[in-house]
Amino acid sequence: MKASRFFIGTLKEAPADAEIVSHKLMVRAGMIRRVAGGIYNYLPVGLRSIRKVEQIVREEMNRAGAIELLMPAVQPAELWQESGRWEQYGPELLRFKDRKQSDFVMGPTHEEVVTDIARNQIKSYRQMPVNFYQVQTKFRDEIRPRFGVMRGREFIMKDSYSFDKDVEGLKLSYQKMYDAYVRIFTRLGLHFRAVAADNGSIGGSGSHEFHVIAETGEDDIAYCPTSEFAANVEAAEALPLIAERAAPKQALTKTSTPGAAKCEAVADLLGLELQSTIKSIVLATENEGAEPTIWMLMLRGDHDLNEIKASKIEGLAGFRFATEAEIVEWFGTPPGYLGPLNTKKPVKVIADRTVANMSDFVVGSNEVDFHTTGVNWGRDLPEPVVADIRNVKKGDPSPDGKGVLDICRGIEVGHVFQLGTKYSEAMGSTFLAENGKPAPMQMGCYGIGITRILGAAIEQNFDEKGIIWPESIAPFQVVVCPMGMDRSELVREHAERVYDELLKAGVDVILDDRGERPGVMFADWELIGVPHRLVIGERGLKEGKIEYQGRRDAEATLLPAEEAAQSVAQKIQAALAI
Amino acid sequence: MKASRFFIGTLKEAPADAEIVSHKLMVRAGMIRRVAGGIYNYLPVGLRSIRKVEQIVREEMNRAGAIELLMPAVQPAELWQESGRWEQYGPELLRFKDRKQSDFVMGPTHEEVVTDIARNQIKSYRQMPVNFYQVQTKFRDEIRPRFGVMRGREFIMKDSYSFDKDVEGLKLSYQKMYDAYVRIFTRLGLHFRAVAADNGSIGGSGSHEFHVIAETGEDDIAYCPTSEFAANVEAAEALPLIAERAAPKQALTKTSTPGAAKCEAVADLLGLELQSTIKSIVLATENEGAEPTIWMLMLRGDHDLNEIKASKIEGLAGFRFATEAEIVEWFGTPPGYLGPLNTKKPVKVIADRTVANMSDFVVGSNEVDFHTTGVNWGRDLPEPVVADIRNVKKGDPSPDGKGVLDICRGIEVGHVFQLGTKYSEAMGSTFLAENGKPAPMQMGCYGIGITRILGAAIEQNFDEKGIIWPESIAPFQVVVCPMGMDRSELVREHAERVYDELLKAGVDVILDDRGERPGVMFADWELIGVPHRLVIGERGLKEGKIEYQGRRDAEATLLPAEEAAQSVAQKIQAALAI
Repeated sequence: MKASRFFIGTLKEAPADAEIVSHKLMVRAGMIRRVAGGIYNYLPVGLRSIRKVEQIVREEMNRAGAIELLMPAVQPAELWQESGRWEQYGPELLRFKDRKQSDFVMGPTHEEVVTDIARNQIKSYRQMPVNFYQVQTKFRDEIRPRFGVMRGREFIMKDSYSFDKDVEGLKLSYQKMYDAYVRIFTRLGLHFRAVAADNGSIGGSGSHEFHVIAETGEDDIAYCPTSEFAANVEAAEALPLIAERAAPKQALTKTSTPGAAKCEAVADLLGLELQSTIKSIVLATENEGAEPTIWMLMLRGDHDLNEIKASKIEGLAGFRFATEAEIVEWFGTPPGYLGPLNTKKPVKVIADRTVANMSDFVVGSNEVDFHTTGVNWGRDLPEPVVADIRNVKKGDPSPDGKGVLDICRGIEVGHVFQLGTKYSEAMGSTFLAENGKPAPMQMGCYGIGITRILGAAIEQNFDEKGIIWPESIAPFQVVVCPMGMDRSELVREHAERVYDELLKAGVDVILDDRGERPGVMFADWELIGVPHRLVIGERGLKEGKIEYQGRRDAEATLLPAEEAAQSVAQKIQAALAI
Repeated sequence: MKASRFFIGTLKEAPADAEIVSHKLMVRAGMIRRVAGGIYNYLPVGLRSIRKVEQIVREEMNRAGAIELLMPAVQPAELWQESGRWEQYGPELLRFKDRKQSDFVMGPTHEEVVTDIARNQIKSYRQMPVNFYQVQTKFRDEIRPRFGVMRGREFIMKDSYSFDKDVEGLKLSYQKMYDAYVRIFTRLGLHFRAVAADNGSIGGSGSHEFHVIAETGEDDIAYCPTSEFAANVEAAEALPLIAERAAPKQALTKTSTPGAAKCEAVADLLGLELQSTIKSIVLATENEGAEPTIWMLMLRGDHDLNEIKASKIEGLAGFRFATEAEIVEWFGTPPGYLGPLNTKKPVKVIADRTVANMSDFVVGSNEVDFHTTGVNWGRDLPEPVVADIRNVKKGDPSPDGKGVLDICRGIEVGHVFQLGTKYSEAMGSTFLAENGKPAPMQMGCYGIGITRILGAAIEQNFDEKGIIWPESIAPFQVVVCPMGMDRSELVREHAERVYDELLKAGVDVILDDRGERPGVMFADWELIGVPHRLVIGERGLKEGKIEYQGRRDAEATLLPAEEAAQSVAQKIQAALAI
């Protein structure tokens, strides 16, 4: 490509509504322009990167045996009524009427449409497994669209849907997609993690999110730097931090702790480690026509409750925090000095795995300004029900036993789900099984946010000059900047030669023949983030040299003029090899 | 591709709502499936052909210097209010509100959005010409969607928009697009014509439609088989069929023509050629506060009025047909025997170009059951105002003087327009001209109906067995059908070898390894329309032969087994060369 035949719309200033760096840089680099809130034009520079992402995604989906089709953006309400999501889905689902007053939606996702295809096309177990995918424009009516392409309303996704005859098949299909996603994000040149995730609203069981690691990410991820383990902090398993419970050494002692209602204050006051205190959290569950059940969840003083884990404990589904009145009624004291000893009415006690192995610990005495030290299971309290009810922390052992957890922030760019039969049962998508009987198909769904990837890649790769693209998705891989091409025949000749050589080597190169001053040229391409630059000037050429600078390099280097193209082509090839 | 890893959804029966052959065959071949009226899933077989069309379109757009971007489907009402089309556009424009009750449309076209881009990005004449294009999904809320992809509601279009500093620039940009479209439709392997068109509602002046020629087409096209001339019948210029007016030979004679109110009947009754009679059509135009002006338009008996041409005559814009009461008042007689002689009140007479050169012709006498023969201009009537007011007919001279017109039917698949400043003036899209003053940009717009092309190609290329694809857009170019691959190692070996050789030759080949019976295989691929087939069987191989059949061939031929792949690859190469 020659820049004179291309459109470069760089800007000095970012728009006022751009809060994060990727949004600012995408607008300044001329990649996107706002049309309405969360709705963008993808300008030529931006579209080139989008197409490169799409191409890698397609190659890997095809390699994994998925088959491409294309479903419509506009979908009839009937399908969403069948699945139940016409009612369940919130106002993010854009609903409208056509000229005949029929109800439609603008598709934020395509489970309904693809399930309709499957129930019409797949009649026998012999036709499965099958995995349909599409790269398609979606719409989600976000209440507060922001962050550019990171939380837009109209966006491009790759979504795919697998259909299997049984759960074993679904697991295989899921694993194929998981592996394909690992290849995709590796080829995209991104630092990422596959993260075990909770399923959320889409239903079914078993899912992973793929996160690009970036400080500006929205999600906290627990990961093990020395193994493959990663999970959303909410989903990561917390192992007991104490392998075996020690025998009691202290006597049970009621101690005055005036004003110390928090674990930190108690530890300070008594000169103890925070790790020997206990946080008691009181929950309630309703019993129809009777008084509620009151629960005490016990966590080590430095740990936090994980409500999702708590809600999965038998009897705790749909729990709420206890009211102050309930606390006074059950414990005889307002919150602040609560504990499992001497409650006024019976309480169900759940101990976190770590708490269950503690001895000589400190709890509230159910009396204002008093705590009890030297508390021990078995001796002072009955053996507790034990469960994993806390969030993991940095330094915790990794659940896979292969190291210690760290916490980082991530941007979700992909998601794989085992849906099971949620949609196939709701919509009657059955097939004839080997036993001759109809059975619901086992479904998986797998998404990649194509446009979101651009934002995530930038959040991970930028500096004060602009974007730093990985070679695989840079709008151009190399820019050739001739100095005074109009004045110097020598410069023109070499610039054209180097450009032609790069093209022949299969490199995506742009020749900046706009006739701009060097400062403008360099600033534009640094902002746009082209990873390799060749500067061709008369002075260098007279010494047989061309100047090379990688986008991350502090200094330029000189290459022999005749080898420059070949040398850059090799750098790119090396970067793209996985 | 191996068929066992692909999805083939052929059907025996076409759906009841499919009226035309392309709709029936696209559903039966498993290319499309209905989701709602005018909204389709593009199944894997269909999407392959769509992608091939898109690829050819992109290559030629890029070659012509157009730059790809991507605009959103969802567009804010504000832009459409600026252009005036929020009010002007009918209910085909799907309007809706988002969750914040803001008005939006689903884009049926993108003049507003691209003009908004241009006014923000293009500041100087130095930045033009520029031509932006996209391949994008559009929505038009057709009142009666039908004919499958031919008149759908959601469809894929390539649309592009050129911006120039002056009219000369616009004409150059227009010509480039015209030439690109000729290359595109040639490469698509379609029999087509570029047709001069009337502009219709989009505004501006100067446009051509590109039509695929097919008997089932919606539009009548006049074209010259011996030249490049083609135009919509409504737009084609009708030359005078008589070069010079002959001197009068007959006397003016009032003749009894009882019951002969039509030219055909008059000619029969009097034993004359229909070509010597005159059809008199009476029109009226309103004059505020006064009686209307009455016009008589005179056409040869075998010609038809072209109302678009008539409406362009000075004074006739907004005409209507005269009422019977007006006819009686102006001519003294009801319709049927009207003529320009002896009217009761003054009438403006317009003669078609051919009529103006006639002599000794026949007109109505303004008296029931009477006509007048031997009428001559100058002698019996004043010299008329002359204009082209008729439709061309088969056999008319071509307006380019290079032959004789024929009439055919066509399916519009592309359109190029000179918009001029319609949108740039309405939306304030100006630039600084060389004289330092702001001027509105000169715009052109250029569309190709990507999905519609599939339907048009099928209307032009099918037989009783199914579709017959041109090589360039066939979902697969060759199918390899092994006979009993599971039973015969020999067949399997050769099938795999031929398949690999074709892949290496860059041919888009599918190996039918599904294990279906020959009859099922052949029927599927004939229905899907794969243009080349190789059948690999044990009997043939033992004689060193593989059977080849082109989709249009009546008979199969035998090829030496070792040369079969090469031979087919050459056939395809030859077909794709333009």
